[in-house]
Amino acid sequence: MNRSELFERYQSTRRITEQLISPLEVEDTVVQPIMDVSPPKWHLGHTSWFFETFLLAPYLTNFRPFHPKYSFIFNSYYDHVGQRVERAKRGLLSRPTLKDILDYRKSTDQGICHLISGVSEDDWQDVAKLTELGLNHEQQHQELLLTDIKYILGHNPLFPAYIESNTIPSNHDSNDALTQPKFIEIPGGIYTIGHQSEGFHYDNESPSHEVLISDLKLQNRLVTNKEYLEFIHDGGYQDFRHWLSDGWDTLKKNKWSSPLYWHNFDGKWFEYTLHGLQPLALNAPICHISFYEAEAFASWAGKRLPTEAEWEISAKILPDAFSNSGRFLENGHYHPQMISSDLTPQLHQMFGDVWEWSASSYLPYPGYRHSADALGEYNGKFMVNQMVLKGGSCVTPKDHIRASYRNFFHPDKRWQFSGMRLAE
Amino acid sequence: MNRSELFERYQSTRRITEQLISPLEVEDTVVQPIMDVSPPKWHLGHTSWFFETFLLAPYLTNFRPFHPKYSFIFNSYYDHVGQRVERAKRGLLSRPTLKDILDYRKSTDQGICHLISGVSEDDWQDVAKLTELGLNHEQQHQELLLTDIKYILGHNPLFPAYIESNTIPSNHDSNDALTQPKFIEIPGGIYTIGHQSEGFHYDNESPSHEVLISDLKLQNRLVTNKEYLEFIHDGGYQDFRHWLSDGWDTLKKNKWSSPLYWHNFDGKWFEYTLHGLQPLALNAPICHISFYEAEAFASWAGKRLPTEAEWEISAKILPDAFSNSGRFLENGHYHPQMISSDLTPQLHQMFGDVWEWSASSYLPYPGYRHSADALGEYNGKFMVNQMVLKGGSCVTPKDHIRASYRNFFHPDKRWQFSGMRLAE
Amino acid sequence: MNRSELFERYQSTRRITEQLISPLEVEDTVVQPIMDVSPPKWHLGHTSWFFETFLLAPYLTNFRPFHPKYSFIFNSYYDHVGQRVERAKRGLLSRPTLKDILDYRKSTDQGICHLISGVSEDDWQDVAKLTELGLNHEQQHQELLLTDIKYILGHNPLFPAYIESNTIPSNHDSNDALTQPKFIEIPGGIYTIGHQSEGFHYDNESPSHEVLISDLKLQNRLVTNKEYLEFIHDGGYQDFRHWLSDGWDTLKKNKWSSPLYWHNFDGKWFEYTLHGLQPLALNAPICHISFYEAEAFASWAGKRLPTEAEWEISAKILPDAFSNSGRFLENGHYHPQMISSDLTPQLHQMFGDVWEWSASSYLPYPGYRHSADALGEYNGKFMVNQMVLKGGSCVTPKDHIRASYRNFFHPDKRWQFSGMRLAE
Amino acid sequence: MNRSELFERYQSTRRITEQLISPLEVEDTVVQPIMDVSPPKWHLGHTSWFFETFLLAPYLTNFRPFHPKYSFIFNSYYDHVGQRVERAKRGLLSRPTLKDILDYRKSTDQGICHLISGVSEDDWQDVAKLTELGLNHEQQHQELLLTDIKYILGHNPLFPAYIESNTIPSNHDSNDALTQPKFIEIPGGIYTIGHQSEGFHYDNESPSHEVLISDLKLQNRLVTNKEYLEFIHDGGYQDFRHWLSDGWDTLKKNKWSSPLYWHNFDGKWFEYTLHGLQPLALNAPICHISFYEAEAFASWAGKRLPTEAEWEISAKILPDAFSNSGRFLENGHYHPQMISSDLTPQLHQMFGDVWEWSASSYLPYPGYRHSADALGEYNGKFMVNQMVLKGGSCVTPKDHIRASYRNFFHPDKRWQFSGMRLAE
Repeated sequence: MNRSELFERYQSTRRITEQLISPLEVEDTVVQPIMDVSPPKWHLGHTSWFFETFLLAPYLTNFRPFHPKYSFIFNSYYDHVGQRVERAKRGLLSRPTLKDILDYRKSTDQGICHLISGVSEDDWQDVAKLTELGLNHEQQHQELLLTDIKYILGHNPLFPAYIESNTIPSNHDSNDALTQPKFIEIPGGIYTIGHQSEGFHYDNESPSHEVLISDLKLQNRLVTNKEYLEFIHDGGYQDFRHWLSDGWDTLKKNKWSSPLYWHNFDGKWFEYTLHGLQPLALNAPICHISFYEAEAFASWAGKRLPTEAEWEISAKILPDAFSNSGRFLENGHYHPQMISSDLTPQLHQMFGDVWEWSASSYLPYPGYRHSADALGEYNGKFMVNQMVLKGGSCVTPKDHIRASYRNFFHPDKRWQFSGMRLAE
Repeated sequence: MNRSELFERYQSTRRITEQLISPLEVEDTVVQPIMDVSPPKWHLGHTSWFFETFLLAPYLTNFRPFHPKYSFIFNSYYDHVGQRVERAKRGLLSRPTLKDILDYRKSTDQGICHLISGVSEDDWQDVAKLTELGLNHEQQHQELLLTDIKYILGHNPLFPAYIESNTIPSNHDSNDALTQPKFIEIPGGIYTIGHQSEGFHYDNESPSHEVLISDLKLQNRLVTNKEYLEFIHDGGYQDFRHWLSDGWDTLKKNKWSSPLYWHNFDGKWFEYTLHGLQPLALNAPICHISFYEAEAFASWAGKRLPTEAEWEISAKILPDAFSNSGRFLENGHYHPQMISSDLTPQLHQMFGDVWEWSASSYLPYPGYRHSADALGEYNGKFMVNQMVLKGGSCVTPKDHIRASYRNFFHPDKRWQFSGMRLAE
Repeated sequence: MNRSELFERYQSTRRITEQLISPLEVEDTVVQPIMDVSPPKWHLGHTSWFFETFLLAPYLTNFRPFHPKYSFIFNSYYDHVGQRVERAKRGLLSRPTLKDILDYRKSTDQGICHLISGVSEDDWQDVAKLTELGLNHEQQHQELLLTDIKYILGHNPLFPAYIESNTIPSNHDSNDALTQPKFIEIPGGIYTIGHQSEGFHYDNESPSHEVLISDLKLQNRLVTNKEYLEFIHDGGYQDFRHWLSDGWDTLKKNKWSSPLYWHNFDGKWFEYTLHGLQPLALNAPICHISFYEAEAFASWAGKRLPTEAEWEISAKILPDAFSNSGRFLENGHYHPQMISSDLTPQLHQMFGDVWEWSASSYLPYPGYRHSADALGEYNGKFMVNQMVLKGGSCVTPKDHIRASYRNFFHPDKRWQFSGMRLAE
Repeated sequence: MNRSELFERYQSTRRITEQLISPLEVEDTVVQPIMDVSPPKWHLGHTSWFFETFLLAPYLTNFRPFHPKYSFIFNSYYDHVGQRVERAKRGLLSRPTLKDILDYRKSTDQGICHLISGVSEDDWQDVAKLTELGLNHEQQHQELLLTDIKYILGHNPLFPAYIESNTIPSNHDSNDALTQPKFIEIPGGIYTIGHQSEGFHYDNESPSHEVLISDLKLQNRLVTNKEYLEFIHDGGYQDFRHWLSDGWDTLKKNKWSSPLYWHNFDGKWFEYTLHGLQPLALNAPICHISFYEAEAFASWAGKRLPTEAEWEISAKILPDAFSNSGRFLENGHYHPQMISSDLTPQLHQMFGDVWEWSASSYLPYPGYRHSADALGEYNGKFMVNQMVLKGGSCVTPKDHIRASYRNFFHPDKRWQFSGMRLAE
């Protein structure tokens, strides 16, 4: 990619972030209802800070920070970079205002424009590489922005919609039952997983390495709301036998009785979506469940979740996996698409729609080393206590996802667009 | 007061509330940094809800609520009125927006306009009385608005000013030492305290009743920052001997080492004010201290705090007490005024400037009864675990305060404009 | 009192403490089910530490501490004396064992024996005074021992009895209704309260001083379980209107629905007593309620609690008050006595049986000063956030109580033998 | 094993448990200083309950429970079996007493005696199998007993010894430096892990299955206190770069600055052992560290922890691994043994001495299924959020450990005898 191509990509990626907040009121950009959720205006500032800190500060001649306190306010978790606002207190800061932060973004964009056009040939490779990292980082925050906006609006007693539309048909009383999922067979053996090609990838996808798996059957489609409702009707949330011990404790402590965003009003199920409160769509993929719920459902169904190696190998060796993708951020629906009633016996919706919980803990690949500088904190220090998710969701940018991509969250988290597919 | 006079007073009082938020950014009206502090836009909505609930709903013909969910959102603590948003979660709600709430206020104002002009003679007395209560309630929230705004801006790493001005001279290096405070003698005996005249008062000021006090000496001025600094320099925050046990525990738990809003940068003391961060003004009254700190200072100084009866009797029998008042909200400084270096041997600044902690617990007066309806919850249910404060502050509306007024807060609270005067 | 009389009194008081633990198993002396409750063996050690610290250390020639760490382990709250085990962690210490602590007591007793017989005439007055204080302290811990033992055994799933006996008749189905309580009239006026005579008293009972009270009516008997049950049956624990706001929050947080130690098994009420689980005795005084519950009951009944001044004046001016006392520790029942069905129109059970919650906050008397040394921490530093109780209980030593005695607890505490009497 | 052999083994195993508490005072058996630690008398009761519940209740003719409430008191975590005392409240129960529980054990032993001699041939296989499980369970609690006793005594300000002896020489000032650890090479390839032979094993060790590992180097000895001290002296506990994010948060929250049981008095290091407080033995294996500390040390040292597969394969293919074992419970030292200064280039102390943290999360083996009854809760429901430890420790019974044994704890736990060995 040459300099002008890179800057074009920079521009278009940055604009998407800003478009995502345009349906919001100023007030929506300020609040932080739980620690996991960051205020939208913080996301806007933090992604600018990332470019300022890792590109402008080290490479731009005569660099001066936009504001001396912004590094304190917009540093997320980089101990190398210094002190920062406590994560739980991001929503207590009314200043800088949204307008201040948009100015900060403009100033950063100008800085990056100067940098990309003016950087010496010596530094160009580094700058290009870091810019690509910054843009991937920006894309991760585009997904987080939508995830967090959904939490903010979906936990307001007024249930405001993010976008008004009637594109989500309800299937609540639908009679067209889906056909049963089919199992796709994957032969056991030694395979290579992890990132292998030239393109961009995160350090946690490497080194690529060989793994041994047994014969496997993987469902050709995602688990649906209807199937999950059967689990609920069968007393799934009242029966400890299906649950891991930590999961059962979490359920009792938080009084879980259904997925996040589900509401039962007068015996009828509704679900908050970014289009507002909607009757539950039975044939849509289950979404916003924790690993504990995915695991309990699988246990109840007499099946299991695939490991991350099994998932990745399946996605790689079946050439149709990517072409049968579901929705991505670019589709502008921000909600997973309904499952078709006559699916071919291929893997469907492996990519997009919902992140799929795997059965694997997030651990370093054999031989993994993170870099010794601040960017070494990007992924490596989180490799404990979390589970791997695969495939991206309806709020993931399409060119951001790949088979080797490893997303990770603690097993009790539900605010991501997370669902599942069964194996046996 | 006739109908048009009352509505005029209604209009002017309501406008003051709205003027108070005009220097703010929208973002400032949303956040709630601690449970005690409510988001400014919540104050705007809650005071409208008070008029809607206690006046429009029962007395306005064909009343319809502005929005079916607003009672849930803007009820503060009235169990009679029903369910409500948890107090600690007011700052998690981005909607209704500030604009929505200003519309709500307009609609309420129209309703009150219709009500006052159109209510039957039968209901007029009740409506007039409740309107007066609503306006006193509105005034209390004007003070709380400024108190909470100070907390929001004063805990932001950028220390933004609420109003820009240079009206606060620093006395940090001042050589003009204040003269020592003088003690005014009040003879012991039987006095009547509580509200006696015709005008408006809260139920907690009645019934007026006789009390017996001993001879008393009360300082003619407030304790200053300079005097409090001596307490700090003498190790006051490190020496358990000065402190009540609960106070010492609170100090250790919260790591207190100075009053709220004080900062020591490179050995120099600063104080956040609504005019921004300022060098500490030595001859200004101490402000933003808890009862525990006031009590510890008095103990260190070998003096004591006056009881609420002693304070009220002193304010009533010395005719100059009110004329020597300090600043009120109307002065527009929102900060207590400097103490003059040549004070007359009279009581100064008894009213305005800072609330004065008394040595008295907030308990019902003999024979006190609260009404059986929702408004009975206004004061009565808080009569335990709190201490009485007297005299109003620089953010209290001038016509809101009187000698019998009983303000009350838990002994660990510091975000009010609270200071002290010593007795012996 | 001469030296041998004092030592005799010392001996007999100390023996009572040890007798109180004789019905216990070793295991019972170790545990601390809540922070308020101390392990019985800690009480035994702490009361010895008190004599060692305040008598042996300063006055005994060639004093050496029994064990270098015991001051750390058995100091309760005296900051002057130094570091100590956190209050909540007393129940985590298996050592020193009960036997070690009994040895510590023996050694202390020998030390006191030497001190009393051998101290110089110069120090004799001080030693005699401090010994008397130590014995009063010991008596307070005799009461606490029984209170804490009741909590330990009464919260064990096996409900073991402390003493086996059948002395508590049940009145659950009794038809002999009590006559209604009568109101005794006390004329208003100026009275002196606080300790006046020569004998021992705590510093918080002084200085005696004049107070002004209005005419008063005080019930001639305590509130009964039966009356309290009516409050429960009338929905008292579900109706916020009767409760102070902090009380209502406490009730909801702790899910209170009846007094401490009450259990409803299959629709029948039982009460844990030191004689084991018993059917609820309807005509016994209500016991183990918090101030919040006492206040809510009074509010429901349309009455109020007396202030501490009203209570003390009534007890002092009516000469029969003490002669009509209820049970004390010496009676060995450790449970309040049933109320007689034909009471004379005099004050009954003012002393003994149950501590009576007053309507007064625990504050210093006018002119109160605590001493500057460690013993100044005995009472003074607790004078905030607590309510006064009067009259002693069935686990108070008889010669420990007097009309001016001020007991004090936070308004949410229920593990003391605390009940109430109404006024109007 | 025939009936009399089984009963003999039962008898001897049960006696060991009781011998382990013989050095204790009654008081030591009662307390629970942290939730992880159970009171010793609870362990005694729980292991009896296990036999009563899973053997006597289903198989013994005319079975009657020893006490109707004991199942409530001594059930650990079996939801199938019913309600139970909250884990954190085990230390609040003084009853049943130690003596009661020893009686309970006797009664259970008689029941098992009758059962083993009298059970029908039909049930014999089941009974034999469950008895073996019960004895393995008893052995796990023997280890836990010592682990918990160490915590109880080691956190007492008196630091009492469990056994008095001078068998732990101090190496603090020792000059005989250990030789550097040697790396043993293990060739990569496909190996089988998990339990394969006939003997007893837990369900979590099965199914045995093939795994693929790369070439590996494993240190021939454990990491020592001296090596760990270098990490501390190099600022290891102050430098975030070595730590996983969750580990760094744990360190800061708990103010960790050295392993559990280490104390620095006047610049000299001591370590609490079951023999009392001792100068730190430099050449002893590091013990009582969390996974976070093990991982941080490895990161600082430029090495890594082995995976559980790598560890098990190494222990299996190197025939000397078991013969070079360290200490077990039977040795009666209850402390890991010093590392010899001239070690052969073989794997030493793989078994015994300290549990070795692996780099692997505790997850089900491919094809793992737990049984549907209460015993299915034994292991399976804990398979999330924990890390695997291998090899047993100096408080593990020797015949209880094997190469396929999978122990598991949360990564922040330090009260187990846990240490590490490095790989690369």
